[in-house]
Amino acid sequence: MRQAGRYLPEYRATRARAGDFMTLCSTPDLACEVTLQPIDRYALDAAIIFSDILTIPHAMGLGLSFAEGEGPRFAKPVRNRADIDALGIPDPLDDLGYVMAALKVTRRELNGRVPLIGFAGSPWTLATYMIEGRGGTDLRTAKALLVEDTHAAHKLLSLLADATVQYLRAQRAAGAQALMIFDTWGGVLTPAMYREFSLRHMASIVAGLKEDAEQDVPIILFTKGGASWLEDMAATGCAGLGLDWSADIGNARARVGEQVALQGNFDPALLYASPDSIRTEVGRILADYGNGPGHVFNLGHGITPGVDPAHAGVLIDAVHELSLPYHQN
Amino acid sequence: MRQAGRYLPEYRATRARAGDFMTLCSTPDLACEVTLQPIDRYALDAAIIFSDILTIPHAMGLGLSFAEGEGPRFAKPVRNRADIDALGIPDPLDDLGYVMAALKVTRRELNGRVPLIGFAGSPWTLATYMIEGRGGTDLRTAKALLVEDTHAAHKLLSLLADATVQYLRAQRAAGAQALMIFDTWGGVLTPAMYREFSLRHMASIVAGLKEDAEQDVPIILFTKGGASWLEDMAATGCAGLGLDWSADIGNARARVGEQVALQGNFDPALLYASPDSIRTEVGRILADYGNGPGHVFNLGHGITPGVDPAHAGVLIDAVHELSLPYHQN
Repeated sequence: MRQAGRYLPEYRATRARAGDFMTLCSTPDLACEVTLQPIDRYALDAAIIFSDILTIPHAMGLGLSFAEGEGPRFAKPVRNRADIDALGIPDPLDDLGYVMAALKVTRRELNGRVPLIGFAGSPWTLATYMIEGRGGTDLRTAKALLVEDTHAAHKLLSLLADATVQYLRAQRAAGAQALMIFDTWGGVLTPAMYREFSLRHMASIVAGLKEDAEQDVPIILFTKGGASWLEDMAATGCAGLGLDWSADIGNARARVGEQVALQGNFDPALLYASPDSIRTEVGRILADYGNGPGHVFNLGHGITPGVDPAHAGVLIDAVHELSLPYHQN
Repeated sequence: MRQAGRYLPEYRATRARAGDFMTLCSTPDLACEVTLQPIDRYALDAAIIFSDILTIPHAMGLGLSFAEGEGPRFAKPVRNRADIDALGIPDPLDDLGYVMAALKVTRRELNGRVPLIGFAGSPWTLATYMIEGRGGTDLRTAKALLVEDTHAAHKLLSLLADATVQYLRAQRAAGAQALMIFDTWGGVLTPAMYREFSLRHMASIVAGLKEDAEQDVPIILFTKGGASWLEDMAATGCAGLGLDWSADIGNARARVGEQVALQGNFDPALLYASPDSIRTEVGRILADYGNGPGHVFNLGHGITPGVDPAHAGVLIDAVHELSLPYHQN
C-alpha cells in the first residue's frame, strides 16, 4: 500500500503544489519527494514508489482523470471486443518512462537507507476500472463480460498481463528491489472466477518475471478479500503474499508454510483507536505469527486520510519494539 | 434479502405513493403490498416481510432518516457510555407494532401460498450504524469502540441482542414462519473480533429464541463475507446459514455437513449478464451443492435497482427447472 498520503501534512503540501493527482505521479521529482516523506518521518524498513495502479490503462489512452473526492474515471471505457482489439501494450520506457525516472531518482536519494518497492495492479483489477469506467460500482459490467464473452475477457486480461510483465521488468531495471501486484478486486469474485480470471493472469506475470533468472527480485501478491485462496496464490511461485485482516496470520502461516513470506495484517481502521489499543493489536499479530522468519509487518490495506500521523508512528515503533523477542529465535 | 425493491416497477409505484422509505416500512398495508409484489410476479417458494434492519435503533429514538440516494442516517448517533446507558429496549408491540401488523396482514393475504420470513439485523451490524451515524464508512469509530471500551461495546451489543430476541419473538407470534438475522458488517472484522463482538451476540439471540421449545421456527444466520466462519456460525444451533458467493457452496456443505441448511449463493451482479449466462451459473451452483436436502437457492446478497425484472425471472425459473434432478435423489 502507499505509505505517503493525505494523512501526512507534508504530502498535502506537495500535492497542492503539484495541482492534480496524476501530475504528482508523473513528475519524477515530486513522486520521489512524497515517496521519501514517510521514510524521513518514520523508522520504516522499506519504501514503496509513489505511483498509481492505473498508469498502464492511462498509457493505453483511456483518458484517466481523478475528480476530487470521486476516485478515478476513464473517459473512454472498454466495453466490447472492438474496444479490446484497439488496445496496444504501452512501451514502458516511452509511455511510462516517468515511473522509471521516479524509481531512479528515488533510489539515488534513498542512497541505500532502505530498499525500494515497485508495483502494478493485477490484470483483473485494471480491467474492472477499464470496463466500468470508474470505481465504486458493483462491477456488474466487468463481471458480465467474464461470463458473456470469456474469450474477449481473456484477451483483455492477457494483454494486461503482458503489459504488466514489461512494465515490472522495466521497474526492476530502473532499480525496484521488490515488486508487488495489487489485486484490489479479486476478492469479489466467486472462487472459480477468481482462479480463472484473476489468479491465472497474475501467475503468468510471476512466470514472465522469473524468466530472467539473474534479474530475480521478490514478487509479492496481494488479493484483498483473498484469504481463502492463499494456497493457490503461493503456488504461483511468488516470494510473498499480502494478507488483509480477514484471516489470522498464524492460521495463514500454518496453511502456506515456508513457501512464502506473509505481509500483514493490521486493520488500518484500528489506527483510529488509542495508542495503547494500537500497541495491543500489534502485539497480538506478532504473537499470532510467532517465532521464525517470513513476517513482514504491514497494514492489511491502505491508510486513510483521517489517520493521525502520530498513530502511524505508534504502530511502527510498536512493531520494532515488540518484534525483538521474535527475532531472537 | 429483500425480494421487493426498486428493480420492480410496481414497487417504485407503491414507494412513490408512500413518499418516504420509512413510511413504506411502517404502514402495514403498504409493507404487505410490496411484500406480495414479487410473490405475485414470480414462482418464489417463500416471502420475506418488507421492512428494514434499522427498525430497532429507530424505535430507540435515534432519529433515523433515509436521504435519497444516500442511505440511512441517524440524527443522534451513539458515541460514548452515556449515550449507551440512555438506551432502552423498545417494546415490540408498542414501538414496533407496525412490523407485527404488517406480518399479520401479509400472512392473511398470502393465505398459505408460501411461508413468510421475518428478520432482524445482527447486534454488531445495528451498532455500526448507531455508532457511525450513517452507512458507507470504514467503521473506524465502531471498531475503535470495540478495542477502546470493550465493556461499553458489549453493553450496547447485549442490549441490542436482548431487544432482538423480544422483537423476533413478537414476529414469530405475529406469524413469521422463519427468522433471519442479517449480519451485513461482521465480515469486515478480524476473526477474533468477529467471534467476540458479532457471533457471540447472534448466538445469544438464537439461544433466547430457542428457549420456547413449542414455538420453534427455523433461524437462519447470514454474515456477509463470513464464509471462513461457517463452522462457528453453525455451532450456534441455528437451522440455516446464508452464504454469499465468496465460497463454493459444495465446499461449504462439506464443512458444515448436515448440521444446517445452506441458503445461497448466486452473485447478484450476474443478474446483469444474459439469460443464458444466468442459467449456466444457476446450473453450476446446483451441481456444486449436489444431491440431497438442505439447499435453499438464493442470491448471495441483495438485488440492485438496475436489474431487469425479466432476468430475475430467468433465475427463478432456471432454479425450478434445473433443480428437478436433485430433488429425485
